Amino acid sequence: MKIRAVLFDAYGTLFDVHSVALAAEQLFPGQGAALSQLWREKQIEYTRLVTMSGQPEAHYRPFWELTRAALQHGADRLGLDLTPAAEERLMNEYRHLSLFPENREVLAELKARGIPAGILSNGDPEMLAVAVKSAGLAELLSPVLSVHPVRRYKTDPAAYALGPAALGLPAREILFVSSNAWDALGATWFGYSTLWVNRSGAPAERLGPAPHFTGRSLREVLACLGKPRTARAAVAFP
Amino acid sequence: MKIRAVLFDAYGTLFDVHSVALAAEQLFPGQGAALSQLWREKQIEYTRLVTMSGQPEAHYRPFWELTRAALQHGADRLGLDLTPAAEERLMNEYRHLSLFPENREVLAELKARGIPAGILSNGDPEMLAVAVKSAGLAELLSPVLSVHPVRRYKTDPAAYALGPAALGLPAREILFVSSNAWDALGATWFGYSTLWVNRSGAPAERLGPAPHFTGRSLREVLACLGKPRTARAAVAFP
Repeated sequence: MKIRAVLFDAYGTLFDVHSVALAAEQLFPGQGAALSQLWREKQIEYTRLVTMSGQPEAHYRPFWELTRAALQHGADRLGLDLTPAAEERLMNEYRHLSLFPENREVLAELKARGIPAGILSNGDPEMLAVAVKSAGLAELLSPVLSVHPVRRYKTDPAAYALGPAALGLPAREILFVSSNAWDALGATWFGYSTLWVNRSGAPAERLGPAPHFTGRSLREVLACLGKPRTARAAVAFP
Repeated sequence: MKIRAVLFDAYGTLFDVHSVALAAEQLFPGQGAALSQLWREKQIEYTRLVTMSGQPEAHYRPFWELTRAALQHGADRLGLDLTPAAEERLMNEYRHLSLFPENREVLAELKARGIPAGILSNGDPEMLAVAVKSAGLAELLSPVLSVHPVRRYKTDPAAYALGPAALGLPAREILFVSSNAWDALGATWFGYSTLWVNRSGAPAERLGPAPHFTGRSLREVLACLGKPRTARAAVAFP
Protein backbone atom coordinates (compact mmCIF):
# COMPACT_ATOMS: atom_id res chain seq x y z
CA MET A 1 0.00 0.00 0.00
CA LYS A 2 1.40 3.31 -1.11
CA ILE A 3 0.29 6.92 -0.71
CA ARG A 4 -0.24 8.23 -4.25
CA ALA A 5 -1.71 11.67 -3.51
CA VAL A 6 -2.24 14.12 -0.66
CA LEU A 7 -5.31 16.21 0.12
CA PHE A 8 -5.12 19.05 2.62
CA ASP A 9 -7.77 20.71 4.67
CA ALA A 10 -7.43 24.46 4.12
CA TYR A 11 -8.31 26.62 7.13
CA GLY A 12 -6.00 25.97 10.06
CA THR A 13 -4.06 23.33 8.15
CA LEU A 14 -2.60 25.14 5.15
CA PHE A 15 -3.68 28.64 6.08
CA ASP A 16 -2.98 30.22 9.43
CA VAL A 17 -6.11 31.85 10.81
CA HIS A 18 -4.16 33.51 13.62
CA SER A 19 -4.21 36.84 11.80
CA VAL A 20 -7.98 36.81 12.27
CA ALA A 21 -7.54 36.75 16.04
CA LEU A 22 -5.03 39.59 15.84
CA ALA A 23 -7.43 41.74 13.87
CA ALA A 24 -10.22 40.90 16.32
CA GLU A 25 -8.02 41.98 19.21
CA GLN A 26 -7.20 45.25 17.50
CA LEU A 27 -10.87 45.98 16.97
CA PHE A 28 -12.02 44.76 20.37
CA PRO A 29 -9.15 44.99 22.84
CA GLY A 30 -9.26 42.25 25.44
CA GLN A 31 -11.96 40.34 23.53
CA GLY A 32 -10.11 39.25 20.40
CA ALA A 33 -9.33 35.72 21.56
CA ALA A 34 -12.86 35.16 22.85
CA LEU A 35 -14.43 36.51 19.68
CA SER A 36 -12.29 34.45 17.35
CA GLN A 37 -12.96 31.29 19.38
CA LEU A 38 -16.72 31.80 19.46
CA TRP A 39 -16.64 32.69 15.78
CA ARG A 40 -14.80 29.50 14.84
CA GLU A 41 -16.99 27.26 17.02
CA LYS A 42 -20.20 28.70 15.62
CA GLN A 43 -18.87 28.49 12.06
CA ILE A 44 -18.29 24.76 12.51
CA GLU A 45 -21.62 24.30 14.27
CA TYR A 46 -23.48 25.96 11.42
CA THR A 47 -21.82 23.71 8.84
CA ARG A 48 -23.01 20.72 10.84
CA LEU A 49 -26.54 21.95 11.39
CA VAL A 50 -27.22 22.63 7.72
CA THR A 51 -25.71 19.27 6.78
CA MET A 52 -27.54 17.26 9.46
CA SER A 53 -30.88 18.88 8.64
CA GLY A 54 -31.75 16.06 6.29
CA GLN A 55 -32.47 18.70 3.66
CA PRO A 56 -29.07 20.17 2.94
CA GLU A 57 -30.33 21.11 -0.51
CA ALA A 58 -32.78 23.43 1.19
CA HIS A 59 -30.66 24.65 4.09
CA TYR A 60 -27.13 24.71 2.69
CA ARG A 61 -25.48 28.09 2.64
CA PRO A 62 -22.00 28.72 1.27
CA PHE A 63 -19.17 28.73 3.78
CA TRP A 64 -18.65 32.45 3.29
CA GLU A 65 -22.20 33.19 4.43
CA LEU A 66 -22.01 30.80 7.38
CA THR A 67 -18.70 32.37 8.37
CA ARG A 68 -20.30 35.80 8.39
CA ALA A 69 -23.34 34.60 10.33
CA ALA A 70 -21.04 32.96 12.88
CA LEU A 71 -19.05 36.17 13.30
CA GLN A 72 -22.25 38.11 13.92
CA HIS A 73 -23.38 35.57 16.50
CA GLY A 74 -20.03 35.69 18.27
CA ALA A 75 -20.27 39.48 18.49
CA ASP A 76 -23.84 39.14 19.77
CA ARG A 77 -22.65 36.75 22.48
CA LEU A 78 -19.98 39.15 23.68
CA GLY A 79 -22.18 42.21 23.33
CA LEU A 80 -19.77 43.82 20.89
CA ASP A 81 -20.74 46.60 18.53
CA LEU A 82 -19.81 44.95 15.26
CA THR A 83 -20.04 47.82 12.80
CA PRO A 84 -20.26 47.03 9.08
CA ALA A 85 -16.68 48.26 8.73
CA ALA A 86 -15.44 45.97 11.51
CA GLU A 87 -17.36 43.04 10.04
CA GLU A 88 -15.83 43.61 6.62
CA ARG A 89 -12.36 43.94 8.06
CA LEU A 90 -12.65 40.62 9.89
CA MET A 91 -14.25 38.84 6.95
CA ASN A 92 -11.48 40.08 4.70
CA GLU A 93 -8.91 38.53 7.00
CA TYR A 94 -10.41 35.22 5.94
CA ARG A 95 -9.82 36.02 2.32
CA HIS A 96 -6.12 36.67 2.59
CA LEU A 97 -4.58 34.34 5.10
CA SER A 98 -0.90 33.64 5.50
CA LEU A 99 0.63 30.21 5.12
CA PHE A 100 2.18 28.34 7.97
CA PRO A 101 5.92 28.79 7.47
CA GLU A 102 6.82 25.21 6.60
CA ASN A 103 4.03 24.65 4.13
CA ARG A 104 5.55 25.98 0.95
CA GLU A 105 8.59 23.76 1.12
CA VAL A 106 6.45 20.71 1.84
CA LEU A 107 4.22 21.43 -1.13
CA ALA A 108 7.25 22.08 -3.35
CA GLU A 109 8.78 18.77 -2.26
CA LEU A 110 5.56 16.91 -3.08
CA LYS A 111 5.58 18.50 -6.51
CA ALA A 112 9.23 17.53 -7.00
CA ARG A 113 8.34 13.95 -6.13
CA GLY A 114 5.45 13.96 -8.59
CA ILE A 115 2.82 13.39 -5.92
CA PRO A 116 -0.45 15.20 -6.58
CA ALA A 117 -1.30 17.55 -3.71
CA GLY A 118 -4.65 19.30 -3.46
CA ILE A 119 -7.20 20.80 -1.13
CA LEU A 120 -10.48 19.36 0.13
CA SER A 121 -12.18 22.11 2.08
CA ASN A 122 -15.47 23.37 3.45
CA GLY A 123 -14.60 26.71 1.90
CA ASP A 124 -16.59 27.72 -1.13
CA PRO A 125 -14.80 27.87 -4.47
CA GLU A 126 -14.32 31.62 -4.55
CA MET A 127 -12.84 31.74 -1.04
CA LEU A 128 -10.46 28.93 -1.89
CA ALA A 129 -9.41 30.45 -5.19
CA VAL A 130 -8.57 33.78 -3.54
CA ALA A 131 -6.73 32.11 -0.65
CA VAL A 132 -4.65 29.92 -2.93
CA LYS A 133 -3.80 32.82 -5.20
CA SER A 134 -3.02 35.20 -2.30
CA ALA A 135 -0.62 32.68 -0.85
CA GLY A 136 1.04 32.13 -4.21
CA LEU A 137 0.21 28.42 -4.27
CA ALA A 138 -1.60 28.11 -7.58
CA GLU A 139 1.30 26.13 -9.09
CA LEU A 140 1.56 23.77 -6.13
CA LEU A 141 -2.01 22.75 -5.39
CA SER A 142 -4.29 20.75 -7.65
CA PRO A 143 -7.09 19.81 -7.43
CA VAL A 144 -8.69 22.45 -5.21
CA LEU A 145 -11.90 20.75 -4.12
CA SER A 146 -14.74 22.54 -2.38
CA VAL A 147 -17.71 20.77 -0.81
CA HIS A 148 -19.92 23.38 -2.46
CA PRO A 149 -21.11 21.18 -5.38
CA VAL A 150 -22.49 18.52 -3.02
CA ARG A 151 -23.93 21.05 -0.55
CA ARG A 152 -22.78 18.93 2.39
CA TYR A 153 -19.99 19.91 4.70
CA LYS A 154 -17.37 17.66 6.19
CA THR A 155 -17.71 15.28 7.97
CA ASP A 156 -20.51 14.13 5.65
CA PRO A 157 -19.23 11.27 3.48
CA ALA A 158 -20.48 13.02 0.33
CA ALA A 159 -17.89 15.71 1.05
CA TYR A 160 -15.03 13.26 1.55
CA ALA A 161 -16.06 11.32 -1.55
CA LEU A 162 -15.00 14.26 -3.71
CA GLY A 163 -11.34 13.35 -3.19
CA PRO A 164 -11.24 9.83 -4.60
CA ALA A 165 -13.57 10.88 -7.41
CA ALA A 166 -11.33 13.75 -8.49
CA LEU A 167 -8.08 11.86 -8.11
CA GLY A 168 -9.24 8.53 -9.50
CA LEU A 169 -7.72 6.75 -6.53
CA PRO A 170 -9.15 4.73 -3.66
CA ALA A 171 -9.35 6.74 -0.41
CA ARG A 172 -6.76 4.60 1.33
CA GLU A 173 -4.13 5.59 -1.24
CA ILE A 174 -4.76 9.27 -0.48
CA LEU A 175 -3.25 10.91 2.59
CA PHE A 176 -5.80 13.30 4.03
CA VAL A 177 -4.16 15.96 6.18
CA SER A 178 -6.00 18.13 8.69
CA SER A 179 -5.26 20.13 11.81
CA ASN A 180 -8.80 19.54 13.00
CA ALA A 181 -9.09 16.34 15.02
CA TRP A 182 -12.75 15.95 14.01
CA ASP A 183 -11.82 16.26 10.34
CA ALA A 184 -9.10 13.64 10.68
CA LEU A 185 -11.61 11.36 12.40
CA GLY A 186 -14.24 11.82 9.71
CA ALA A 187 -11.67 11.13 7.00
CA THR A 188 -10.43 8.03 8.83
CA TRP A 189 -13.97 6.71 9.09
CA PHE A 190 -14.45 7.44 5.40
CA GLY A 191 -11.43 5.35 4.50
CA TYR A 192 -8.60 7.79 3.83
CA SER A 193 -5.12 7.37 5.19
CA THR A 194 -4.96 10.25 7.63
CA LEU A 195 -2.48 12.61 9.21
CA TRP A 196 -3.57 14.83 12.07
CA VAL A 197 -1.32 17.89 12.21
CA ASN A 198 -1.64 18.65 15.88
CA ARG A 199 0.11 22.01 15.95
CA SER A 200 -1.12 22.98 19.39
CA GLY A 201 -0.44 19.69 21.15
CA ALA A 202 -4.16 19.12 21.79
CA PRO A 203 -5.24 15.84 23.37
CA ALA A 204 -6.43 13.09 21.02
CA GLU A 205 -10.14 12.53 20.60
CA ARG A 206 -11.73 9.98 22.89
CA LEU A 207 -13.97 8.78 20.07
CA GLY A 208 -13.30 6.50 17.13
CA PRO A 209 -10.05 5.26 15.66
CA ALA A 210 -6.88 7.30 15.97
CA PRO A 211 -5.62 8.91 12.77
CA HIS A 212 -3.05 6.75 11.02
CA PHE A 213 -0.39 9.37 11.63
CA THR A 214 -0.02 12.33 13.94
CA GLY A 215 2.56 15.08 13.82
CA ARG A 216 3.17 18.65 14.90
CA SER A 217 3.75 20.30 11.54
CA LEU A 218 3.03 19.80 7.87
CA ARG A 219 6.54 18.39 7.48
CA GLU A 220 5.18 15.14 8.86
CA VAL A 221 3.55 14.61 5.47
CA LEU A 222 6.89 13.74 3.94
CA ALA A 223 7.63 11.25 6.71
CA CYS A 224 4.27 9.54 6.17
CA LEU A 225 4.85 8.86 2.49
CA GLY A 226 7.29 6.07 3.08
CA LYS A 227 5.55 4.48 6.05
CA PRO A 228 3.06 1.63 5.94
CA ARG A 229 -0.40 2.75 6.96
CA THR A 230 -0.68 0.09 9.58
CA ALA A 231 2.20 1.52 11.59
CA ARG A 232 -0.16 3.83 13.40
CA ALA A 233 1.99 4.39 16.43
CA ALA A 234 5.15 5.11 14.50
CA VAL A 235 4.80 8.84 14.29
CA ALA A 236 2.09 9.27 16.88
CA PHE A 237 2.30 12.39 18.97
CA PRO A 238 2.94 11.26 22.53
CA MET B 1 -54.08 24.99 14.12
CA LYS B 2 -53.88 23.80 17.67
CA ILE B 3 -51.09 22.41 19.80
CA ARG B 4 -52.20 18.93 20.83
CA ALA B 5 -49.08 17.65 22.59
CA VAL B 6 -45.78 18.86 23.97
CA LEU B 7 -42.35 17.23 23.71
CA PHE B 8 -39.47 18.42 25.85
CA ASP B 9 -35.77 18.14 25.41
CA ALA B 10 -34.34 16.69 28.63
CA TYR B 11 -30.87 17.97 29.54
CA GLY B 12 -30.82 21.68 30.18
CA THR B 13 -34.52 22.02 29.42
CA LEU B 14 -36.28 19.84 32.00
CA PHE B 15 -33.23 18.92 34.03
CA ASP B 16 -30.79 21.43 35.41
CA VAL B 17 -27.22 20.38 34.71
CA HIS B 18 -25.83 23.12 36.96
CA SER B 19 -25.15 20.59 39.72
CA VAL B 20 -22.63 18.99 37.37
CA ALA B 21 -20.64 22.23 37.26
CA LEU B 22 -20.79 22.50 41.04
CA ALA B 23 -19.39 19.01 41.48
CA ALA B 24 -16.68 19.75 38.91
CA GLU B 25 -15.69 22.86 40.85
CA GLN B 26 -15.49 20.90 44.09
CA LEU B 27 -13.24 18.32 42.48
CA PHE B 28 -11.12 20.81 40.52
CA PRO B 29 -11.23 24.20 42.23
CA GLY B 30 -11.03 27.05 39.78
CA GLN B 31 -11.57 24.74 36.80
CA GLY B 32 -15.15 23.57 37.31
CA ALA B 33 -16.76 25.99 34.90
CA ALA B 34 -14.17 25.35 32.21
CA LEU B 35 -14.42 21.58 32.59
CA SER B 36 -18.19 21.51 32.47
CA GLN B 37 -18.23 23.75 29.41
CA LEU B 38 -15.66 21.69 27.51
CA TRP B 39 -17.47 18.54 28.57
CA ARG B 40 -20.80 19.76 27.24
CA GLU B 41 -19.34 21.04 23.97
CA LYS B 42 -17.50 17.80 23.28
CA GLN B 43 -20.57 15.74 24.21
CA ILE B 44 -22.60 17.57 21.59
CA GLU B 45 -19.76 17.37 19.05
CA TYR B 46 -19.50 13.62 19.47
CA THR B 47 -23.24 13.14 18.93
CA ARG B 48 -22.88 15.06 15.68
CA LEU B 49 -19.78 13.26 14.48
CA VAL B 50 -21.24 9.78 14.91
CA THR B 51 -24.47 10.87 13.24
CA MET B 52 -22.80 12.67 10.31
CA SER B 53 -20.46 9.76 9.64
CA GLY B 54 -22.85 8.32 7.11
CA GLN B 55 -22.59 5.04 8.97
CA PRO B 56 -24.31 5.78 12.26
CA GLU B 57 -25.14 2.09 12.53
CA ALA B 58 -21.40 1.43 12.74
CA HIS B 59 -20.30 4.47 14.74
CA TYR B 60 -23.23 5.18 17.04
CA ARG B 61 -22.47 4.95 20.73
CA PRO B 62 -25.08 5.47 23.44
CA PHE B 63 -25.25 8.94 24.95
CA TRP B 64 -23.91 7.66 28.25
CA GLU B 65 -20.72 6.49 26.58
CA LEU B 66 -20.30 9.67 24.55
CA THR B 67 -20.86 11.70 27.70
CA ARG B 68 -18.10 9.79 29.46
CA ALA B 69 -15.72 10.12 26.51
CA ALA B 70 -16.42 13.85 26.38
CA LEU B 71 -15.68 14.21 30.09
CA GLN B 72 -12.37 12.43 29.64
CA HIS B 73 -11.46 14.67 26.73
CA GLY B 74 -12.34 17.79 28.69
CA ALA B 75 -10.08 16.66 31.53
CA ASP B 76 -7.33 15.92 28.98
CA ARG B 77 -7.66 19.43 27.59
CA LEU B 78 -7.28 21.03 31.00
CA GLY B 79 -4.57 18.63 32.12
CA LEU B 80 -6.66 17.46 35.07
CA ASP B 81 -6.04 14.21 36.89
CA LEU B 82 -9.45 12.63 36.41
CA THR B 83 -9.29 9.67 38.76
CA PRO B 84 -11.80 6.85 38.32
CA ALA B 85 -13.53 8.05 41.49
CA ALA B 86 -13.79 11.62 40.19
CA GLU B 87 -15.06 10.38 36.83
CA GLU B 88 -17.75 8.29 38.49
CA ARG B 89 -18.81 11.14 40.71
CA LEU B 90 -19.25 13.48 37.75
CA MET B 91 -20.99 10.85 35.64
CA ASN B 92 -23.36 10.14 38.49
CA GLU B 93 -24.33 13.79 38.62
CA TYR B 94 -25.80 13.21 35.19
CA ARG B 95 -27.94 10.41 36.49
CA HIS B 96 -29.66 12.35 39.21
CA LEU B 97 -30.28 15.88 38.09
CA SER B 98 -32.61 18.34 39.72
CA LEU B 99 -35.57 19.91 37.97
CA PHE B 100 -35.76 23.57 37.17
CA PRO B 101 -38.09 24.99 39.83
CA GLU B 102 -41.03 25.88 37.62
CA ASN B 103 -41.14 22.65 35.68
CA ARG B 104 -43.28 20.49 37.94
CA GLU B 105 -46.18 22.94 37.99
CA VAL B 106 -46.04 23.33 34.22
CA LEU B 107 -46.12 19.57 33.70
CA ALA B 108 -48.94 19.21 36.24
CA GLU B 109 -50.93 21.90 34.45
CA LEU B 110 -50.47 20.14 31.10
CA LYS B 111 -51.73 16.94 32.67
CA ALA B 112 -54.71 18.77 34.15
CA ARG B 113 -55.53 20.10 30.71
CA GLY B 114 -55.25 16.63 29.18
CA ILE B 115 -52.37 17.57 26.90
CA PRO B 116 -49.84 14.77 26.42
CA ALA B 117 -46.37 15.86 27.53
CA GLY B 118 -43.30 13.75 26.88
CA ILE B 119 -39.57 13.80 26.31
CA LEU B 120 -37.59 13.54 23.08
CA SER B 121 -33.95 13.34 24.06
CA ASN B 122 -30.49 12.31 22.95
CA GLY B 123 -30.20 10.49 26.27
CA ASP B 124 -30.30 6.74 26.14
CA PRO B 125 -33.32 4.97 27.61
CA GLU B 126 -31.69 4.00 30.89
CA MET B 127 -30.39 7.52 31.57
CA LEU B 128 -33.80 8.97 30.86
CA ALA B 129 -35.64 6.43 32.98
CA VAL B 130 -33.39 7.13 35.97
CA ALA B 131 -33.61 10.90 35.50
CA VAL B 132 -37.41 10.88 35.24
CA LYS B 133 -37.76 8.61 38.25
CA SER B 134 -35.24 10.57 40.34
CA ALA B 135 -37.12 13.77 39.67
CA GLY B 136 -40.45 12.14 40.53
CA LEU B 137 -41.92 12.81 37.11
CA ALA B 138 -43.01 9.34 36.05
CA GLU B 139 -46.69 10.28 36.34
CA LEU B 140 -46.31 13.49 34.40
CA LEU B 141 -44.23 12.53 31.34
CA SER B 142 -45.27 10.19 28.59
CA PRO B 143 -43.96 9.17 26.15
CA VAL B 144 -40.28 9.26 27.07
CA LEU B 145 -38.57 8.99 23.69
CA SER B 146 -34.88 8.33 23.24
CA VAL B 147 -33.08 8.57 19.92
CA HIS B 148 -31.38 5.29 20.79
CA PRO B 149 -33.57 3.05 18.58
CA VAL B 150 -32.72 5.02 15.44
CA ARG B 151 -29.04 5.44 16.36
CA ARG B 152 -29.05 9.03 15.13
CA TYR B 153 -28.82 12.03 17.37
CA LYS B 154 -30.67 15.27 17.05
CA THR B 155 -30.65 17.25 14.80
CA ASP B 156 -30.97 14.30 12.39
CA PRO B 157 -34.55 14.16 11.10
CA ALA B 158 -34.77 10.46 12.01
CA ALA B 159 -34.50 11.54 15.64
CA TYR B 160 -37.19 14.20 15.38
CA ALA B 161 -39.47 11.80 13.49
CA LEU B 162 -39.86 9.73 16.65
CA GLY B 163 -42.23 12.32 18.09
CA PRO B 164 -44.98 12.39 15.47
CA ALA B 165 -44.74 8.59 15.14
CA ALA B 166 -45.22 8.01 18.87
CA LEU B 167 -47.94 10.61 19.32
CA GLY B 168 -49.84 9.95 16.09
CA LEU B 169 -49.87 13.66 15.33
CA PRO B 170 -48.33 15.82 12.62
CA ALA B 171 -45.23 17.65 13.81
CA ARG B 172 -46.83 21.07 13.53
CA GLU B 173 -49.44 20.09 16.13
CA ILE B 174 -46.69 19.21 18.60
CA LEU B 175 -44.89 21.92 20.55
CA PHE B 176 -41.22 20.99 20.78
CA VAL B 177 -39.51 22.71 23.68
CA SER B 178 -35.77 23.05 24.09
CA SER B 179 -33.28 25.30 25.85
CA ASN B 180 -30.74 24.57 23.13
CA ALA B 181 -31.01 27.01 20.26
CA TRP B 182 -29.64 24.43 17.82
CA ASP B 183 -32.26 21.91 18.94
CA ALA B 184 -35.06 24.42 18.48
CA LEU B 185 -33.69 25.19 15.00
CA GLY B 186 -33.50 21.52 14.03
CA ALA B 187 -37.04 20.95 15.25
CA THR B 188 -38.30 24.02 13.39
CA TRP B 189 -36.70 22.78 10.18
CA PHE B 190 -38.28 19.38 10.78
CA GLY B 191 -41.74 20.89 11.04
CA TYR B 192 -42.56 21.08 14.73
CA SER B 193 -44.04 24.10 16.37
CA THR B 194 -41.15 25.22 18.57
CA LEU B 195 -40.45 27.03 21.79
CA TRP B 196 -36.91 28.04 22.64
CA VAL B 197 -36.59 28.37 26.40
CA ASN B 198 -33.78 30.88 26.50
CA ARG B 199 -33.02 30.80 30.22
CA SER B 200 -29.71 32.58 29.94
CA GLY B 201 -30.74 35.36 27.60
CA ALA B 202 -28.45 34.10 24.85
CA PRO B 203 -28.56 35.80 21.45
CA ALA B 204 -30.70 34.18 18.77
CA GLU B 205 -29.00 32.08 16.12
CA ARG B 206 -27.99 33.86 12.94
CA LEU B 207 -28.99 30.84 10.88
CA GLY B 208 -32.35 29.56 9.73
CA PRO B 209 -35.86 30.49 10.83
CA ALA B 210 -36.50 31.76 14.34
CA PRO B 211 -38.35 29.38 16.63
CA HIS B 212 -42.10 30.00 16.64
CA PHE B 213 -41.94 31.06 20.28
CA THR B 214 -39.23 32.16 22.63
CA GLY B 215 -39.41 32.55 26.38
CA ARG B 216 -37.26 32.62 29.47
CA SER B 217 -38.78 29.73 31.44
CA LEU B 218 -40.81 26.61 30.91
CA ARG B 219 -43.90 28.58 31.97
CA GLU B 220 -43.95 29.99 28.44
CA VAL B 221 -45.29 26.60 27.32
CA LEU B 222 -48.67 27.40 28.79
CA ALA B 223 -48.77 30.77 27.01
CA CYS B 224 -47.97 29.11 23.68
CA LEU B 225 -50.89 26.71 23.81
CA GLY B 226 -53.48 29.31 23.02
CA LYS B 227 -51.48 31.24 20.46
CA PRO B 228 -51.52 30.75 16.70
CA ARG B 229 -48.25 29.43 15.40
CA THR B 230 -47.91 32.18 12.89
CA ALA B 231 -47.67 34.83 15.59
CA ARG B 232 -43.95 34.33 15.85
CA ALA B 233 -43.14 37.67 17.34
CA ALA B 234 -45.85 37.56 19.97
CA VAL B 235 -43.78 36.00 22.73
CA ALA B 236 -40.39 36.54 21.23
CA PHE B 237 -37.62 37.31 23.65
CA PRO B 238 -36.47 40.84 22.91
